Amino acid sequence: MDALEAMVTRKVVRQFARRPVELEQLRRIVDAGRHAMSARNLQPWQFIIVRNPDTLRELGALCTTGRFVADAPAAVVVLKDTSNARWADTDCAQAVCNMANAGWAMGLGTCWVGNFDAAAIAQRLGVPGNLAVVTVLPFGYPADGNPPQPKPLKPRREVVHFERFGSSQP
Amino acid sequence: MDALEAMVTRKVVRQFARRPVELEQLRRIVDAGRHAMSARNLQPWQFIIVRNPDTLRELGALCTTGRFVADAPAAVVVLKDTSNARWADTDCAQAVCNMANAGWAMGLGTCWVGNFDAAAIAQRLGVPGNLAVVTVLPFGYPADGNPPQPKPLKPRREVVHFERFGSSQP
Repeated sequence: MDALEAMVTRKVVRQFARRPVELEQLRRIVDAGRHAMSARNLQPWQFIIVRNPDTLRELGALCTTGRFVADAPAAVVVLKDTSNARWADTDCAQAVCNMANAGWAMGLGTCWVGNFDAAAIAQRLGVPGNLAVVTVLPFGYPADGNPPQPKPLKPRREVVHFERFGSSQP
Repeated sequence: MDALEAMVTRKVVRQFARRPVELEQLRRIVDAGRHAMSARNLQPWQFIIVRNPDTLRELGALCTTGRFVADAPAAVVVLKDTSNARWADTDCAQAVCNMANAGWAMGLGTCWVGNFDAAAIAQRLGVPGNLAVVTVLPFGYPADGNPPQPKPLKPRREVVHFERFGSSQP
């Protein structure tokens, strides 16, 4: 899929078809994350690809705003290096952005899960103490009969300025 | 350009050709930013498209780690809403990620400028007090004879795990 098309058509997906996701697709998704911009090229990220249904069910139970992870065919757990904390959040956000777009370009949707029991997830997945869970990103094809809806965007005139703040004419 | 190709081939560009950048390209870049994921869909971002050479020169002088902005044919100044601060940095990072990829897909490079005189830039561009400068993103075609170089990436085995942290086999 064309890069710009992927970005402007991507929608949030929380309900997934039973159709499986191939390991190669998940590798490409994580590769897109690895190629995100990173301040001073520190790359303060780690990724755990999860496909085991039992693990996904357990993760879903630990994701307060992401119960749907339990029903996804796969997920990527994103971890940040807290010993290099200054830009870790914004670097990891860019990795998530790339992964969401890469997934969408292959027909797969995701949703940034923001609230979860970080300590319990870290313990469950054997994550060492210098890393913290940023998000759990489920990946799967959108469920049939429940197509993802676009979110309302602020109109261009409210957020785009030319040469100077408040000037709507180029 | 294909979405995955754009993400994995994108390089940081700090030296720009004199070739101009069309307004329509900059609109598409900012549109890609507008379509980034945003927590609770708050979209806590604003964008100022700058093409005036005098303004670009002034911005370059105010960007400690981005003097090259002065020689770019265009820039997008990214602002965050500080009254909605909780996720503003990570939302804006995703907008920057999309803009960098959108630019690259059209042949344009950029670099996340991280150090600058935020107060002076805000004053120069008439930015109101509830907004803060996140970055100044120059955009332009890479300079001839000085092709952008890829940054060394951590190898997959150092950052990709399967099912559990430390497990390198799917």
